[in-house]
Amino acid sequence: MKSDKDRLQATPDERAARFGQSGLVVWYTGLSGAGKTTLATFTERRLLDRGYPTFLLDGDVLRSGLCHDLGFSIADRHENVRRAGVVAGWLAEAGLFCLVALISPFRSGRAAARARVPAGRFVEVFVNASLDVCEQRDTKGLYRRARAHEISDFTGISSPYEPPDSPEVEVRSDLLTVEQCGGLVLAAVEEKLRVRPSLFGPT
Amino acid sequence: MKSDKDRLQATPDERAARFGQSGLVVWYTGLSGAGKTTLATFTERRLLDRGYPTFLLDGDVLRSGLCHDLGFSIADRHENVRRAGVVAGWLAEAGLFCLVALISPFRSGRAAARARVPAGRFVEVFVNASLDVCEQRDTKGLYRRARAHEISDFTGISSPYEPPDSPEVEVRSDLLTVEQCGGLVLAAVEEKLRVRPSLFGPT
Repeated sequence: MKSDKDRLQATPDERAARFGQSGLVVWYTGLSGAGKTTLATFTERRLLDRGYPTFLLDGDVLRSGLCHDLGFSIADRHENVRRAGVVAGWLAEAGLFCLVALISPFRSGRAAARARVPAGRFVEVFVNASLDVCEQRDTKGLYRRARAHEISDFTGISSPYEPPDSPEVEVRSDLLTVEQCGGLVLAAVEEKLRVRPSLFGPT
Repeated sequence: MKSDKDRLQATPDERAARFGQSGLVVWYTGLSGAGKTTLATFTERRLLDRGYPTFLLDGDVLRSGLCHDLGFSIADRHENVRRAGVVAGWLAEAGLFCLVALISPFRSGRAAARARVPAGRFVEVFVNASLDVCEQRDTKGLYRRARAHEISDFTGISSPYEPPDSPEVEVRSDLLTVEQCGGLVLAAVEEKLRVRPSLFGPT
């Protein structure tokens, strides 16, 4: 049983030609409570409604499955981001628009995820809300627990967050609505897709 | 920034309706050297040529990226199979035909992967070649190293292989050509897709 593996294997170019698109990664980074998953979910809906196949990975999805062996130490959080980057790269290679909503506090981890996809196929979205606002929201009660020292290495409290130097888009989620933020993200995605400029016309 | 996440999120049914298909997992299990990746690559080409978006995960792909932190102990091999199952489930949920070519020696690991996709969306392919034939081929030189005790816990030599009890398809890759084996796999996939029976008509 033998065959020419290289001849048979699908290339990204072939996938792009066959399915009329090539995938990309939209990576949402920011503090806990900044609204990453909310914004990613909103963006996914808009992309789906425009006919793009999408997939959304967020912290909860990752932690409940692929990364359930990991804790929240610095090393484990690096590994969590690393795995998300690998899987996002595969999904993009398969032709999907993969949305990743993850605190991903370190520049190195985000840079590694970016390096896994072809140039121009990575949209880094800095979901920027002030620590005060995020802590005030505290939708998951994590800030309270971090302040009470029940959680260690908590980003923004006891562990650093390194903001992106030059993200494709930055949204002030503490000042704008989700619709406004989503519009900025979609515009950034549109910029990457400018070979097909008609797709994001006025709706 | 707030939105109705449940209302916005894409369901598998919506994906299926939008892209005209729902994904599935084709899982190739068997000894090292049985021809899993060769057969998966052949099948992927045939599926792609029929218009299905596919993605192929094999041991090398997994080990070089997502699972590069894992060794070959029993525990690490369980974890390797577990992660493959999670990612395959996501790819299928996104509407792709995900082909996984992995020794996956234990029934429990394969059953867990099956449980991650909806009923009827998992095709277990037992790529069955005798140990003698696999060891004779020894394309990667691993059997020689296992016999020389340079590799421990090597499936078929120093670690058990649990053959599937009731795989969707079993192919004798030591007796049939890759085309013959591939035909059997495609027929099994066709069976799962029988809601669209015309797709695998005579070619």
